[in-house]
Amino acid sequence: MWNGGLVQHALAVDVIDVTDPDDPRVDDFRDLSAVDRRPDLAVLPGGEAGKGLVIAEGVTVTQRMIASRFTPHAFLGVPNRLAQLSNDLSHPSLAGVPFYRVSADVMAAIVGFHLNRGVLAAAHRPAPLTVAEVLADARTVVVLEGVNDHENIGSIFRNAAGLHVDALIFGAGCSDPLYRRSVRVSMGHALLVPFARADAWPDDLDTAARAGFSLVALTPGEGSVPLDAAVDADRIAFLVGAEGPGLTAETMARCDVRARIPMSRGTDSLNVATAAAIAFYERTRRLQA
Amino acid sequence: MWNGGLVQHALAVDVIDVTDPDDPRVDDFRDLSAVDRRPDLAVLPGGEAGKGLVIAEGVTVTQRMIASRFTPHAFLGVPNRLAQLSNDLSHPSLAGVPFYRVSADVMAAIVGFHLNRGVLAAAHRPAPLTVAEVLADARTVVVLEGVNDHENIGSIFRNAAGLHVDALIFGAGCSDPLYRRSVRVSMGHALLVPFARADAWPDDLDTAARAGFSLVALTPGEGSVPLDAAVDADRIAFLVGAEGPGLTAETMARCDVRARIPMSRGTDSLNVATAAAIAFYERTRRLQA
Repeated sequence: MWNGGLVQHALAVDVIDVTDPDDPRVDDFRDLSAVDRRPDLAVLPGGEAGKGLVIAEGVTVTQRMIASRFTPHAFLGVPNRLAQLSNDLSHPSLAGVPFYRVSADVMAAIVGFHLNRGVLAAAHRPAPLTVAEVLADARTVVVLEGVNDHENIGSIFRNAAGLHVDALIFGAGCSDPLYRRSVRVSMGHALLVPFARADAWPDDLDTAARAGFSLVALTPGEGSVPLDAAVDADRIAFLVGAEGPGLTAETMARCDVRARIPMSRGTDSLNVATAAAIAFYERTRRLQA
Repeated sequence: MWNGGLVQHALAVDVIDVTDPDDPRVDDFRDLSAVDRRPDLAVLPGGEAGKGLVIAEGVTVTQRMIASRFTPHAFLGVPNRLAQLSNDLSHPSLAGVPFYRVSADVMAAIVGFHLNRGVLAAAHRPAPLTVAEVLADARTVVVLEGVNDHENIGSIFRNAAGLHVDALIFGAGCSDPLYRRSVRVSMGHALLVPFARADAWPDDLDTAARAGFSLVALTPGEGSVPLDAAVDADRIAFLVGAEGPGLTAETMARCDVRARIPMSRGTDSLNVATAAAIAFYERTRRLQA
């Protein structure tokens, strides 16, 4: 039988056909957009603990999850996605992991909406990395403060991966970096780029400073120098705040440099992920010069 | 009565209270998310002509519409948004334009969902600008090909406004730049940054070349030079294609330079609006040096 040109590998996963949408074995993929019980929430709206699963959607993100430290414990997908992923699903680390094979209709009934991407993977959260761990071998990092938009967080992961940024640090007021939408928008790079939550905020900034990082605040405000005059240090931590409020005064006071992107008069500031990308680009340009 | 510190101006608009959601006078704001009849569609899904209205949402975008060549012919909003906009709504150009004042519930019943932004403005489309018109006084422009994602188009407008780009040109395969979501994501800059549709594609690229524009294709592909080596020309047109397919071979063949953003290995290309923003930044940096 012609198999679409794909080389056939021996699958490591256990393929299990599921025809009943109520099958409890697929509960980790159930009601993905239900605000009160979706499985990717670490904290439910009522305040009690959620499953906090990490969910990958689509072929590319699933491949990146398999390659990451977030080892999937289950898959849900339609037959042709299983075929597309056969190479990835033959990896020995996935021995015995269930792949629940379903029709598109059963899949829609389980997740609660029609999911074009056709495949999902679920992973439990491994132990989080510490700030010291992610700084250890890094030369360029980005520190977020008050960034609570999941799409912006996902975009910053993607931009970091594309533009030579070694790690992300989440300061006070940031949303869960592993929320389903962030992982999707990041194209799976949220699973590959090391990140840590700053549990001691803003003291963790001093940890970075002691490790030799120059703390560069991105801000259009007073006392700022042009970005290209602020990216020379051997180790750099860029600090970005949410659109609107920006960085807090306390954080700003701990920074070594304030850097601005030259903007047109009378416009809003750039989107935070866009501003960060420009800083990453300028840093890359300097390191490659 | 305390009025929130706002200076009270004599309104130019006609304030008309509407309490019946079925009032035909507010039809231009009706069913904003109904795919088959939303008033901002120039072409309806069946192929027949739609109203093609330009819709501004929220205070900031409404203010920008009033300042633009898209003169509103009607407003719909809740009382406190009317108060917030009183200064803008006193402009003589708005004499006699109806402001339909409604409760939040009536507004939701009209537009079809609860609209937090609380105010809308509608404008008919003025005569489109030509490619020659938008090129006339421009020094930096961006040309889009095959960019059909409304959010990306809106982001490119916003980035252009913020980063000294004078005009946008829409080549083959692009979506309507005035779709409601594009206008919203652009923060209203879709109404302020001049743009034209290239009706003669790709011949309009020759028009730009004859006007002295260097055509710089943004592409990670072969034969490209680093971006910072490609932004020196007196007049520049950056060309960007959709994520995935990129620019067509025919368009690429007409470009003078191929420029790349230095990306990490093994990552996807950047989002098209992000890549464009980086090009705009590099151009701004050069012009200000």
